[in-house]
Amino acid sequence: MSGSTFGNIFKITTWGESHGSGIGVVVDGCPAGLALNEMDIQSFLDRRKPGSSRFTTQRKESDNVEILSGIFEGKTTGTPISMVVQNTAQRSADYSEIASYYRPGHADYTFDQKYGFRDYRGGGRSSGRETIGRVAAGAIASKLLLELGITISAYTQAIGPIEIPNPERPLNCIDIDEARNNPTGMPDKDTSRKAEAYLKECMEKLDSAGGIIACRVVNLPAGIGEPVFEKLDANLAKAILSIGAVKAFEIGDGIKAASANGSSNNDHFRINGSSVIKTTNHAGGVLGGISDGSELILRAYFKPTPSIFQKQDTINKNGEEITIQIKGRHDPIIVPRAVVVVESMTAVTVLDMLLQNMTARVDKIKNFYS
Amino acid sequence: MSGSTFGNIFKITTWGESHGSGIGVVVDGCPAGLALNEMDIQSFLDRRKPGSSRFTTQRKESDNVEILSGIFEGKTTGTPISMVVQNTAQRSADYSEIASYYRPGHADYTFDQKYGFRDYRGGGRSSGRETIGRVAAGAIASKLLLELGITISAYTQAIGPIEIPNPERPLNCIDIDEARNNPTGMPDKDTSRKAEAYLKECMEKLDSAGGIIACRVVNLPAGIGEPVFEKLDANLAKAILSIGAVKAFEIGDGIKAASANGSSNNDHFRINGSSVIKTTNHAGGVLGGISDGSELILRAYFKPTPSIFQKQDTINKNGEEITIQIKGRHDPIIVPRAVVVVESMTAVTVLDMLLQNMTARVDKIKNFYS
Amino acid sequence: MSGSTFGNIFKITTWGESHGSGIGVVVDGCPAGLALNEMDIQSFLDRRKPGSSRFTTQRKESDNVEILSGIFEGKTTGTPISMVVQNTAQRSADYSEIASYYRPGHADYTFDQKYGFRDYRGGGRSSGRETIGRVAAGAIASKLLLELGITISAYTQAIGPIEIPNPERPLNCIDIDEARNNPTGMPDKDTSRKAEAYLKECMEKLDSAGGIIACRVVNLPAGIGEPVFEKLDANLAKAILSIGAVKAFEIGDGIKAASANGSSNNDHFRINGSSVIKTTNHAGGVLGGISDGSELILRAYFKPTPSIFQKQDTINKNGEEITIQIKGRHDPIIVPRAVVVVESMTAVTVLDMLLQNMTARVDKIKNFYS
Amino acid sequence: MSGSTFGNIFKITTWGESHGSGIGVVVDGCPAGLALNEMDIQSFLDRRKPGSSRFTTQRKESDNVEILSGIFEGKTTGTPISMVVQNTAQRSADYSEIASYYRPGHADYTFDQKYGFRDYRGGGRSSGRETIGRVAAGAIASKLLLELGITISAYTQAIGPIEIPNPERPLNCIDIDEARNNPTGMPDKDTSRKAEAYLKECMEKLDSAGGIIACRVVNLPAGIGEPVFEKLDANLAKAILSIGAVKAFEIGDGIKAASANGSSNNDHFRINGSSVIKTTNHAGGVLGGISDGSELILRAYFKPTPSIFQKQDTINKNGEEITIQIKGRHDPIIVPRAVVVVESMTAVTVLDMLLQNMTARVDKIKNFYS
Repeated sequence: MSGSTFGNIFKITTWGESHGSGIGVVVDGCPAGLALNEMDIQSFLDRRKPGSSRFTTQRKESDNVEILSGIFEGKTTGTPISMVVQNTAQRSADYSEIASYYRPGHADYTFDQKYGFRDYRGGGRSSGRETIGRVAAGAIASKLLLELGITISAYTQAIGPIEIPNPERPLNCIDIDEARNNPTGMPDKDTSRKAEAYLKECMEKLDSAGGIIACRVVNLPAGIGEPVFEKLDANLAKAILSIGAVKAFEIGDGIKAASANGSSNNDHFRINGSSVIKTTNHAGGVLGGISDGSELILRAYFKPTPSIFQKQDTINKNGEEITIQIKGRHDPIIVPRAVVVVESMTAVTVLDMLLQNMTARVDKIKNFYS
Repeated sequence: MSGSTFGNIFKITTWGESHGSGIGVVVDGCPAGLALNEMDIQSFLDRRKPGSSRFTTQRKESDNVEILSGIFEGKTTGTPISMVVQNTAQRSADYSEIASYYRPGHADYTFDQKYGFRDYRGGGRSSGRETIGRVAAGAIASKLLLELGITISAYTQAIGPIEIPNPERPLNCIDIDEARNNPTGMPDKDTSRKAEAYLKECMEKLDSAGGIIACRVVNLPAGIGEPVFEKLDANLAKAILSIGAVKAFEIGDGIKAASANGSSNNDHFRINGSSVIKTTNHAGGVLGGISDGSELILRAYFKPTPSIFQKQDTINKNGEEITIQIKGRHDPIIVPRAVVVVESMTAVTVLDMLLQNMTARVDKIKNFYS
Repeated sequence: MSGSTFGNIFKITTWGESHGSGIGVVVDGCPAGLALNEMDIQSFLDRRKPGSSRFTTQRKESDNVEILSGIFEGKTTGTPISMVVQNTAQRSADYSEIASYYRPGHADYTFDQKYGFRDYRGGGRSSGRETIGRVAAGAIASKLLLELGITISAYTQAIGPIEIPNPERPLNCIDIDEARNNPTGMPDKDTSRKAEAYLKECMEKLDSAGGIIACRVVNLPAGIGEPVFEKLDANLAKAILSIGAVKAFEIGDGIKAASANGSSNNDHFRINGSSVIKTTNHAGGVLGGISDGSELILRAYFKPTPSIFQKQDTINKNGEEITIQIKGRHDPIIVPRAVVVVESMTAVTVLDMLLQNMTARVDKIKNFYS
Repeated sequence: MSGSTFGNIFKITTWGESHGSGIGVVVDGCPAGLALNEMDIQSFLDRRKPGSSRFTTQRKESDNVEILSGIFEGKTTGTPISMVVQNTAQRSADYSEIASYYRPGHADYTFDQKYGFRDYRGGGRSSGRETIGRVAAGAIASKLLLELGITISAYTQAIGPIEIPNPERPLNCIDIDEARNNPTGMPDKDTSRKAEAYLKECMEKLDSAGGIIACRVVNLPAGIGEPVFEKLDANLAKAILSIGAVKAFEIGDGIKAASANGSSNNDHFRINGSSVIKTTNHAGGVLGGISDGSELILRAYFKPTPSIFQKQDTINKNGEEITIQIKGRHDPIIVPRAVVVVESMTAVTVLDMLLQNMTARVDKIKNFYS
């Protein structure tokens, strides 16, 4: 049970290592009849491509996706969609040294403890390249959600200590275009520049930084999510924590809610025309694990990249204490490239729960089959 | 797929509403041969029992558990363990009024949107009483973990803005006895008194408070957890967020890691006698989703109880805007009673992943079957 | 993973041993809004009740079901439905002897090999009483299917070598009323009498008999079932083989198809008014794992009851060869009482796959959420 | 939930259509440390390769497998093993005609009913080529089982009405070498020649044949399989029925058991040296869903190939009654090529349940983690 499958109905199974022949995903349970081609996937993958700024690894990969199954005459057939991206820029020689020791903050030690040995080249299965499969699947989920009028937008909220002002502002006050076009993924030009300066400083100190990614889902109908273990936010938490380097997850006010009072934290229901609205959205769009029709807001907290070029103490496989200095190509921050990963995992999760919800009521089932 | 089952091998299925005839759980996949009786379960349930302090609901329930199956001659047989707690202190009349409107911060509205109607008595399925099943299952998981030398300890870290000093201190500097014996669940007498004063103030204002629960797992071997979607911390995140009122989850430094640098956040491996240790534990015991042999540290952030006695704006089922004032028996804070729930969900998750890990290596499988 | 849960969306979890305090089931994922009360369940349970004829165990159990959760104001709420039947007629003393040896044809030996020990009273978990949970769940599934116009009818096709004439005849030529009202469950009075004579002979010889149960599903729409591993017939095969004593499963012509030719086995499509029909139904209603709109026909082959009163050779727990003679209350045949079990497992499976099918097409999903 | 994943711990996900770019499988949960290379897989795939006899389709495919992930330095790493076989010999033009009508006995009609349209080329996802993924996975499962001393052998028992004599004889009286080297897969040269003559006759009549495949598992320890829904034989039934064209499944005496008496059907336990044995094996190696340590025997009943070259009545997509004559390359029988598919699905199922069984007992878990 190596756990490479996610989802109950819209099910994704990723495979591949950093330096194997390729990386891929099988998307099973995608409904039939969705117009889909490789451009739909590629545009998502391009958002996580390395080499797009000075803050990302200089490894040059084109990361071109190929769809191997599940599409006929331009539409999904309802059968598994297999997608693959070849690994083309491996320089395994760079990694031969790390075969023998355990890098701090990486999964080298834990893989060896679990499996007895590991594919040490570029992090093997725990490489960030594993997320290619997630993003390819997320592209499909996002396209299907868009057919239902649901949109998902993620962006960088903070890099190290540099945070955008007023992060709780509504999505229509967030400049997503700006976020998609600057090297930090921040929806705010001024803050982005400050973050760039901070990252430059980190690099000069041979150090790295973490950050926060926010993600918002607009137009999700009320009623999505199951009331006990399969709460919408519980599944999102798992989806987000399953991304390497994420150390915390919050929904709505999240952490801040813990120090608030009920009187300020409760969102009040009101009527706006014929719609039910809430005057505030501290809950982040979920009540009792079920969507309430308002915007879904979540945040992922990323630790700093563990690969830094400073000298570090560690041990080798023989149990000897040593001092190492990591070489190779490593991002000083992964947050900007992870924005599309957070968006993709959110899309996959939301779609899966939206499909699960279709069986909740006898009257709707009868209507479906009549 | 109402989602009342949790776990892959050690699988728990909870059932029951606040004002139905009872609340229960079926634990399937519990290994055979564990000495178990009702006292083992009852001691856990007593920790979440209402009426034990002035900060908890005055509803008096004895919450006595009965084991209906799966035990023979004092030991688990490997077959499902069905446990039930009768509901004895329902006063449904208290709730007749809320049938017609949607309480802010509760799941009333979302249940109606999902299912078309709801059992409105005492929150129905979204009542805190649903956690009885989780705690009963957690008692079993904890006992089995203890047989393997693994202990789990949760306690209150903060109530509203009142936090224990130096919350990162190692577990042996945490006074768990104190935490188990004061009304806040805090491992620190002074802070507990401050928190009690704060809660008294909240109650006087007809308001409520949230808080933070920390949970630590000691002696977990390295290698537990799967590398991709079934990461140990991802499953813990889901387990914790599936508890009502939890709005955020962190592992290790969690939120703080997002603003740290790699040089300070990386934990260094060293040798201590014949053991591998880390000089720090910012990671909270997990690297790449797999346990690293050091203490596992997680935190759950709870929102304030939504049931407050102040007037609140909301709407009724007819879509009319109204002002309500909630009556009945409601805790001004649920955090102290939720400590054992966090501990239980952690135990269930850790045990499940420990069992899953047994199939990771061919050499160990061969040894098992030889 | 003791495997007491069945289904993906409509999920049932059974628990209980023959001589524990009770037997039960939790039905999770039942859609909200189904009118349901204990009479609906009881009428199914009464069909498997012991003591109803001279061919069934004389153990007298009233097997009264109690619904503990998931119903509010006479309708399912969408949350888990917990049902329990108390065990009232245990005479454990009858079984003390079998604690020490392994009955031929029973699961005594395999349980000990798997779990190290077993609850030997009345077969423990492998008792036929485990099916009470299945039947209670099947009653709910059947009621929901009926709301969709789908009916399921099982009956005894053969007892030992005595088979009804022309077993392939269409369901409207099958006298289900007769089957429900005679001691064999056969839809044919003459054959039933012959079977009764055969059983009487078996009993005189201290022997037992097996038989065949047929089950037919009428009005199932085309398109139900998934094309690869989750074929409708594959899931039915698992459902049926999971019933104790079933040794074979067939769909449609099944076994006979293996010796037929394509020219005679292929069913031809024709048009009848505005409907698509098949001129024959060798396939039994499934093509490529997906229902084709015609009648679903399956058969379950039951071995003879292993508890016979003749002397038998076996071994005891100390590995000594012994000769035993079983006492107690045992049916000379279980087939008549198993008819409703086959019907129930079919209902649960068909309903689950019907719900799964709702997410197969984008156009229907869009329509559902519009 | 298109259902392309099978297994709980050793999990396989197949993908691909007959005339897409390729066919593949992702094997997730394969334990680490198994020596594995492409030859291990290829030798299994070669057993189902088309064009190897005059009774199989003349489509010439080399069906060369490529392993894309999960292997490092010649051993499995515990991460997903992705394997692909390119489709090279598609002649889609052959199939353009069948786009418009529904072939009798095929899944054309049911796919259209389910998904609204279908990839009609060569059967699309319901093509026999889908089994390539199963066989590739089965090769891995078989190799791992062999490490544990467990062997699986399938062979043809019958083709149409021609059956090998004494099909119940023990495996050491079955000539598996012969079965692997003649065009029928039968372990008996004389019967094989009769079957060849029968098939020749079928072909001359433009007709097709079905048959029976038997499969035996030797050296499986007692205790494998779970007692209720996840019975070993229930899972095998699902695995086997999930193979296209299988219409029935039996374990041990299966069908014959239904007409037997308990006195003849019960297997008696005896002691042979230090081993527990049974004097007969009517049960086929399973009691109460759990392996009993004797040989596991199952049989799969295949219907005749539906693609025959005779004229057949059917309807087209416009609902018009037509007469068709199928062209193209079609096996008059698929049984000989399906032998390795039955063997593979058995291997995958048995291995999965063997891994699941590792968590059954507290004492063994303690021993594992000590």
